[in-house]
Amino acid sequence: MPEYGNVVALAGGVGGAKLVQGLAAVHPNNQLSAIINTADDFRLYGLYISPDVDTVMYTLAGLANPATGWGIAGDTRATLDAIARYGEDPWFALGDQDFATHILRSHYLQEGATHTTTTARLAAALGIEAALLPMSDDPVATEILTADRWLGFQDYFVARRHNDDVLDVRFKSIEAATPTSEVLEAIASANLIIFCPSNPVVSIEPILAVPGIREALIAAAAPIVAVSPIIGGRALKGPADRMLASQGVEVSPLGVAEIYRGIIDGIVIDNADAALEAPLAERGLQVHVSQTIMGDRSDRGRLAQEILDVEWTRA
Amino acid sequence: MPEYGNVVALAGGVGGAKLVQGLAAVHPNNQLSAIINTADDFRLYGLYISPDVDTVMYTLAGLANPATGWGIAGDTRATLDAIARYGEDPWFALGDQDFATHILRSHYLQEGATHTTTTARLAAALGIEAALLPMSDDPVATEILTADRWLGFQDYFVARRHNDDVLDVRFKSIEAATPTSEVLEAIASANLIIFCPSNPVVSIEPILAVPGIREALIAAAAPIVAVSPIIGGRALKGPADRMLASQGVEVSPLGVAEIYRGIIDGIVIDNADAALEAPLAERGLQVHVSQTIMGDRSDRGRLAQEILDVEWTRA
Repeated sequence: MPEYGNVVALAGGVGGAKLVQGLAAVHPNNQLSAIINTADDFRLYGLYISPDVDTVMYTLAGLANPATGWGIAGDTRATLDAIARYGEDPWFALGDQDFATHILRSHYLQEGATHTTTTARLAAALGIEAALLPMSDDPVATEILTADRWLGFQDYFVARRHNDDVLDVRFKSIEAATPTSEVLEAIASANLIIFCPSNPVVSIEPILAVPGIREALIAAAAPIVAVSPIIGGRALKGPADRMLASQGVEVSPLGVAEIYRGIIDGIVIDNADAALEAPLAERGLQVHVSQTIMGDRSDRGRLAQEILDVEWTRA
Repeated sequence: MPEYGNVVALAGGVGGAKLVQGLAAVHPNNQLSAIINTADDFRLYGLYISPDVDTVMYTLAGLANPATGWGIAGDTRATLDAIARYGEDPWFALGDQDFATHILRSHYLQEGATHTTTTARLAAALGIEAALLPMSDDPVATEILTADRWLGFQDYFVARRHNDDVLDVRFKSIEAATPTSEVLEAIASANLIIFCPSNPVVSIEPILAVPGIREALIAAAAPIVAVSPIIGGRALKGPADRMLASQGVEVSPLGVAEIYRGIIDGIVIDNADAALEAPLAERGLQVHVSQTIMGDRSDRGRLAQEILDVEWTRA
């Protein structure tokens, strides 16, 4: 069995959070870091909201709503209803407990703390030992080109329920963003780097697009492994399948591998895609075939352990 | 019966809110303005909180918690509990619905709106027709000198439950504050001005201390009437009695009249203080003696109507 010391996961929202939780269940948490997409961050009612950071944080803290994967289990919505009473549109579901996160994050940021230190403070208070690292402390905003115009990510994803055809994706202000020293150090000292089964186009790509992160990954000593979020030609959740199509790649682990070409050494695919093992291997990738759908916590730990049990090597 | 057109009330928190509600029940609301103390305003978790404005607003909207006089009836505290879970001290009771007010006010202020326009927007959304006017759009902060040091008002009042002896009171930054044009216009066009039975020292005095407001009141054509918050030598609620003593005046309607000397033309006192009618009249004041304790809504309307039924005259 290999012994990976420092494990680093790149994660977006729900799917990423599940695998990070699995890793936290089977790997020493002080040797586990998650680099999290912040290109979905936005302000609502003046509060700074970081959906992917929160989803990973709530999941690791055992607070996440199991029905949705995001938000806090059992959360109520008295605050949002009262906001609606003032005539504001409550289009983005925010629970009362969830508001506490956004209030304090906004407060700490306003006081001059970075997204990174704020996340560390909130996560530590919830008893999380793994390092949750926003990809950057600089603002980046994913925008989606639909038939008629560019939409902010949450407008496309939540308000319009990702029903629009996606013609293109861009990350506003990404050229001015820098990776944090924590992110670069995590990558440099990693023994294994895992791209979680998050949406490659809008969850992992923004992380890779922060100037310096792609280069750091390519320079890293650790093998880099992607877990395919596409199973049997479809995304388990969300619009990753349609987004891959919009990027002109195949909606399969082959398309995922294409997106990550030149960066990853290996890929984890579902049993449903076992037929793709050979073509992926032909592309020079190590392939692990498994049950990749993470239903409950035991699934997550099992998949994480399986990934850690493979002797991944750096190409 | 006199016919007062424009009625203006100066109000602090709970006691003031009750009389404003009474006035709103018996007087045309488009001819009713409340000038509200903002020297208790403060920031908590980065949110701007205006306790007296909120108390008047919630009371007029019929939302106020009848048990406390402040806060929203039936409000829950999931947000505050979650804030405490992050290690913050939940020393100031904020309900989930209440948070909506603070979030939106902070948001509108951050966007560049004034306290006055923000209050108007929030109050209008709650169906309030009377004009709720913060005394100033500039920051003023009441501070209380106790045995060992100056305390912020909420620290003295809420965190330390107004148990300290009050040696002195000051209004930080008051010299730089200006009254709003809405406040000056309300005073100038008033036909009757009522000082609600709020704490004279920390609720009404800060309004009078905004440079220009005392002068505007003295220049006003309308008679000015104070309702004594001291009944039988005690404040009905809060530390007004001890605060009057700390100002070196008698803890009675005579002390209240002393605080407001040179401004008021008349005073409304409780039946319990009927013996003071003559000494108050000797000081040149018109005196109305009544049942001034406002238990329920009908009490409030009755007292308001009684005040409006007196033929007050300008000295």
